[in-house]
Amino acid sequence: MQVAMIQEKIVPVEELEPIYLDRGIYFGDGVYEVVRSYNGKIFALEEHLQRLAKSLSAIEIVGVDIDRIRSRVQKAFDTAGIPNAKIYFHITRGSALRNHICEAKLEPNFFLTVTELNDDTEEKNKGIAVSTFPDWRWKRCDIKSLNLLANVLARQDAAKKGCAEAILVDETGLITEGAASAFFAVSGRKLRTAPLTANILPSITRRFVIEAAKKIGLEIVEKSITPQQARCADELFIAVTTKDIVPVVEFDGKLIREGKPGKYTKLLIQEFRSFTS
Amino acid sequence: MQVAMIQEKIVPVEELEPIYLDRGIYFGDGVYEVVRSYNGKIFALEEHLQRLAKSLSAIEIVGVDIDRIRSRVQKAFDTAGIPNAKIYFHITRGSALRNHICEAKLEPNFFLTVTELNDDTEEKNKGIAVSTFPDWRWKRCDIKSLNLLANVLARQDAAKKGCAEAILVDETGLITEGAASAFFAVSGRKLRTAPLTANILPSITRRFVIEAAKKIGLEIVEKSITPQQARCADELFIAVTTKDIVPVVEFDGKLIREGKPGKYTKLLIQEFRSFTS
Repeated sequence: MQVAMIQEKIVPVEELEPIYLDRGIYFGDGVYEVVRSYNGKIFALEEHLQRLAKSLSAIEIVGVDIDRIRSRVQKAFDTAGIPNAKIYFHITRGSALRNHICEAKLEPNFFLTVTELNDDTEEKNKGIAVSTFPDWRWKRCDIKSLNLLANVLARQDAAKKGCAEAILVDETGLITEGAASAFFAVSGRKLRTAPLTANILPSITRRFVIEAAKKIGLEIVEKSITPQQARCADELFIAVTTKDIVPVVEFDGKLIREGKPGKYTKLLIQEFRSFTS
Repeated sequence: MQVAMIQEKIVPVEELEPIYLDRGIYFGDGVYEVVRSYNGKIFALEEHLQRLAKSLSAIEIVGVDIDRIRSRVQKAFDTAGIPNAKIYFHITRGSALRNHICEAKLEPNFFLTVTELNDDTEEKNKGIAVSTFPDWRWKRCDIKSLNLLANVLARQDAAKKGCAEAILVDETGLITEGAASAFFAVSGRKLRTAPLTANILPSITRRFVIEAAKKIGLEIVEKSITPQQARCADELFIAVTTKDIVPVVEFDGKLIREGKPGKYTKLLIQEFRSFTS
């Protein structure tokens, strides 16, 4: 008899609930998105759904109706009734006995949570410390997949150092991005961030940051920098869906701008509000 | 109210079963092992448990009692009563609302299946075809983690080409290993395989293959080769727990040894039997 065991409990394989056979857990064979709402309105949902469609297509998960996903997200958000919510959702290839190759056509699994966002006023006002960590991620970071162990290890390392985010550095010594954020440096009137390649997530917040930066007259330079260059920048910040822009005031123990958020960073935070209000 | 949604169904987050909050599915934040039995006896369980302990330690999952894991594996295997069984088990960091950083101390989750192995006589007698694919995996393949999407994509590509395994090629043009196997080439009396680095899983079957190869008088060369060198080898084979040694008779469409398993490969298969019987 084929059996499964969950902690100490043994059950016949046929009696397992599908969630225990989710390819998400065996392989990370799925993709996800995180959107947030500002004062009761979901921000940039279409952009996130477009990226989701691209991620699904890149790993060849077929048969997902994006319109249906949109209504599910909206329905769950409406049910929760949380004005400033974080909405996480993932889609996996489906459930089956573990086998890399998916022999049968599976029904993709959808899972979503709507939770309350933590107040980020203090982080935004005071800025955060970050620390560097090797970029151990796979070579298709342009796909927003569930393979995130490298990100977890990087962020755990940062947390141990008292830092709020890990900044990933590739084998050539260049910064790719944050473990869960895009990374930006301001020097003079230049805003630098890594170009979009297979090593970078096409961050939607990054897109809005660039739009905001153009509005305030910054020159955008899509070129990777080294940790050494980051330490010498006038201003640093990260960008992430759940918090939009957060100033970075300490980088690997070195204070940036004497530990105070920079003027362009503050202007960008202000400008970003025009998108979300 | 914080809510979750599973397919179309909305539930309060607090009512979710822990499996839905498993960090294995959110991040692939866990490690696994596959062992098999030959005629009612589990092969090399201690070696697999040692590797499991190393993987757990590498990603800092603490508090797992390896003795308890050993008894669980044995108990599930005994209950199943399958003489030639595949035993898969994983341990994840635990269940919690999604957050890269694990704030609370979680209870690790254990999951195992015992299933019947497919008969591999034909594969072993006739050999298999393989095809190459870029090695997109992360930079810590020495950890046997649940981040396996790159392996899935590689094997899906191979399957489309009618191949039984994908052979991964890194950015420098060298073969690392198979997507779910170690890879070997025989030329003259030399047995070549990639050295153990962070880019390679420390395969236990590989260790037994090397032992068997020494017994039959082959010289072991731990050096990576290119696909071009693989095409020109006298013999090729893969090694994997569930099937030990499988001859490779076609590599990216090129027949190896006129499409017939090589003599050293056959000798090694024979020699391997002395370990498992």
